[in-house]
Amino acid sequence: MGNIARTPNPPYYAVIFTSERTEGDNGYGEMAKEMVQLASEQPGFLGAESVRDQNGVGITVSYWDSLEAIKNWKEHARHQLAQEKGKKEWYKRFSTRICKVEHDYFFERES
Amino acid sequence: MGNIARTPNPPYYAVIFTSERTEGDNGYGEMAKEMVQLASEQPGFLGAESVRDQNGVGITVSYWDSLEAIKNWKEHARHQLAQEKGKKEWYKRFSTRICKVEHDYFFERES
Repeated sequence: MGNIARTPNPPYYAVIFTSERTEGDNGYGEMAKEMVQLASEQPGFLGAESVRDQNGVGITVSYWDSLEAIKNWKEHARHQLAQEKGKKEWYKRFSTRICKVEHDYFFERES
Repeated sequence: MGNIARTPNPPYYAVIFTSERTEGDNGYGEMAKEMVQLASEQPGFLGAESVRDQNGVGITVSYWDSLEAIKNWKEHARHQLAQEKGKKEWYKRFSTRICKVEHDYFFERES
């Protein structure tokens, strides 16, 4: 499914993170890469999808098997540091939404 | 909040649409614009966020006040036509996830 996360049957949980970057890198790229890797190693992680456009607007959705898994990831020490730097340096604004995925549908073109 | 949807307090609903475009426009740009406008006129629409990158990978999240509003939009005749063309022409693959937003958090930098 390429860039589309292969999640199990619902219900499961999603974190929708929508953000607008500040100018310049300021260590963002490296930390973002580390966070993707680290998140994928956490218990309960099911997958993630991430897109950022040329205007610096991005949407990242990560999928988890429980609210507890999301809470544990939020409180992970290294992730906490990234969150602090995010507010101080990397983002003009962002929103985080915690959701329960109730239904899903996948389409793939026959090649 | 710029490109971040100003949604009311939870609970509300989200549709996460992740997609990979085929090559070429094939009428996609015009229809996408029309669908954004039309969606925003539907009862129960709360807002939307949309990003597509240079590789043709996109995430669009639309927010709604009820599952019924999402169902009505899905069944809207003009939207049905767009969905058919999406499968035939515009997308290599996509996923649609219907979610209940249980918690949200907004951050905006002081300017």
